[in-house]
Amino acid sequence: MSFDRLIEKIVKMQNPTVVGLDPKLEYIPEYIKAKKFDKYGKNFKGAAKAILAFNKGIIDEIYDIVPAIKPQAAYYEMYGWEGVKTLAKTIAYAQEKGMYVITDGKRNDIGATMTAYAAAHLGVTDLDGVEQAAFGSDALTVNGYLGTDGIAPLLELCRQKDKAIFVLVKTSNQSSGELQDRKLDDCKSVYETMGEMCEKWGGEAMGKLGYSSVGAVVGATYPEQLAELRKALPNTFFLVPGYGAQGGGARGVANAFDENGLGAIVNSSRAVMLAYRKEQDCPEKDYAKAARREVIRMKEDIVSYLPKISLE
Amino acid sequence: MSFDRLIEKIVKMQNPTVVGLDPKLEYIPEYIKAKKFDKYGKNFKGAAKAILAFNKGIIDEIYDIVPAIKPQAAYYEMYGWEGVKTLAKTIAYAQEKGMYVITDGKRNDIGATMTAYAAAHLGVTDLDGVEQAAFGSDALTVNGYLGTDGIAPLLELCRQKDKAIFVLVKTSNQSSGELQDRKLDDCKSVYETMGEMCEKWGGEAMGKLGYSSVGAVVGATYPEQLAELRKALPNTFFLVPGYGAQGGGARGVANAFDENGLGAIVNSSRAVMLAYRKEQDCPEKDYAKAARREVIRMKEDIVSYLPKISLE
Repeated sequence: MSFDRLIEKIVKMQNPTVVGLDPKLEYIPEYIKAKKFDKYGKNFKGAAKAILAFNKGIIDEIYDIVPAIKPQAAYYEMYGWEGVKTLAKTIAYAQEKGMYVITDGKRNDIGATMTAYAAAHLGVTDLDGVEQAAFGSDALTVNGYLGTDGIAPLLELCRQKDKAIFVLVKTSNQSSGELQDRKLDDCKSVYETMGEMCEKWGGEAMGKLGYSSVGAVVGATYPEQLAELRKALPNTFFLVPGYGAQGGGARGVANAFDENGLGAIVNSSRAVMLAYRKEQDCPEKDYAKAARREVIRMKEDIVSYLPKISLE
Repeated sequence: MSFDRLIEKIVKMQNPTVVGLDPKLEYIPEYIKAKKFDKYGKNFKGAAKAILAFNKGIIDEIYDIVPAIKPQAAYYEMYGWEGVKTLAKTIAYAQEKGMYVITDGKRNDIGATMTAYAAAHLGVTDLDGVEQAAFGSDALTVNGYLGTDGIAPLLELCRQKDKAIFVLVKTSNQSSGELQDRKLDDCKSVYETMGEMCEKWGGEAMGKLGYSSVGAVVGATYPEQLAELRKALPNTFFLVPGYGAQGGGARGVANAFDENGLGAIVNSSRAVMLAYRKEQDCPEKDYAKAARREVIRMKEDIVSYLPKISLE
């Protein structure tokens, strides 16, 4: 249980980054789209098949150097159930290659319904006695606005199986402060309070490497809050979006890490998926090789601000 | 735009209720499951086909007296992409029968990603020039923890097309107060503040019947907060879960309505889906007829505490 399995991969690869697979159709090289549209038609099926081929190409090029992927559910739901099928196949393919998968779904609901989301994304579904995994991811992002009821069903799964969650604490977007930065009557902000709830929930599901099964999403775009939260939440592992395209730099991102270079994983999506367009004269058939080059650049950028990543 | 289309249906049917279709496999009559498992196997396909047949049966019995259904995404995702296909087919079937559909997904994310969710659930997806609707619902529940960025893409769709959203304000679960009831430094609670944000967002997308495109989720289990919010948020239409199975009574629910018996729609899920088990000696083949009887009972219970529902 907890993030131990992810942390071990990070240490082994000396790479605390995750590649976000948020594949809008417009990001995908024309040759892939042409092939799939020709075969299946210019419809959701064709689009979903193109996205799957694109994802597999990237996974093939990065699985030996990047510990995890983070598919964003919205970009699959956008292509209907065919898109959602591609989400399931992407998760399975990455896991076959040994990668850790974080489904970015920001799910939230009351207890009974959260039990259904937990089964869907991290656990198994009971089909009148036959158990099957629907999406079978390793970790899920969730929103804690509903309080403990909405988190408890996930904790049970984290304890029973080797799973984990990331709760939204301080998000990377510009307007995140509208609610999250507001001070409560005890002078703590909403995001600090949510962070404290993560520590509390995580207390019931601690791992062996110092971090619990309950992580927090903290945006790279707010480096001061990253530093403050790292200090306040010693057992909470961070997922840090917003590096690169959203403007968060590696120097600020270093604030998310502990003295062993652990405690966080930094996400990049667009910069990796679209690396082939940013490089000069990169043929689109080399999109995955360009993604690999960007992943290496990103890793080197980030670790250059960190102590050596180690378990001691 | 806005909830005008829903409000008109409510007035015409004199029925401010919505049936939640959250069909766990265990709720479904054995004869339906046996038929579909025999045909497709005891797998996600068989389960998804059973759920679709169950949903269609209920819709056929209620579409002439109930204005809307609210499928809960979690209970479809639980059955994998096959389940998600059943969600899409359920939405389309209900709309063919003239019903208004609220997808209960509680989606939330930063702006760019929320644009993808908006396209997925309420809008259309661009397939390199070909536009197709993925789920094409009429309204979507969302979580406003990320602030304006995460709501703006939806507002645009509400303005352009005839769509609407419900933002979580005060949820029906027991632990909803852990964050939502906390007072901010201006002495207003988090849920009051979220409610005020709904009014502000809705100001940019008002309908003709007094309510904006931005509704709020307020639980039936908190009648005092319902009354207080109804007064504070005159242009915000309420979705009220928690009636029945979760313990909210019709007298308390009346607090959600305005002086014309409008301004809210009350959800019931389990009590309708499982009416056939609660009735004495109801054969399971009559599950949909039992659902109809429960829907009528619920409507009569709720309207008995309301003024006559009218547009004036």
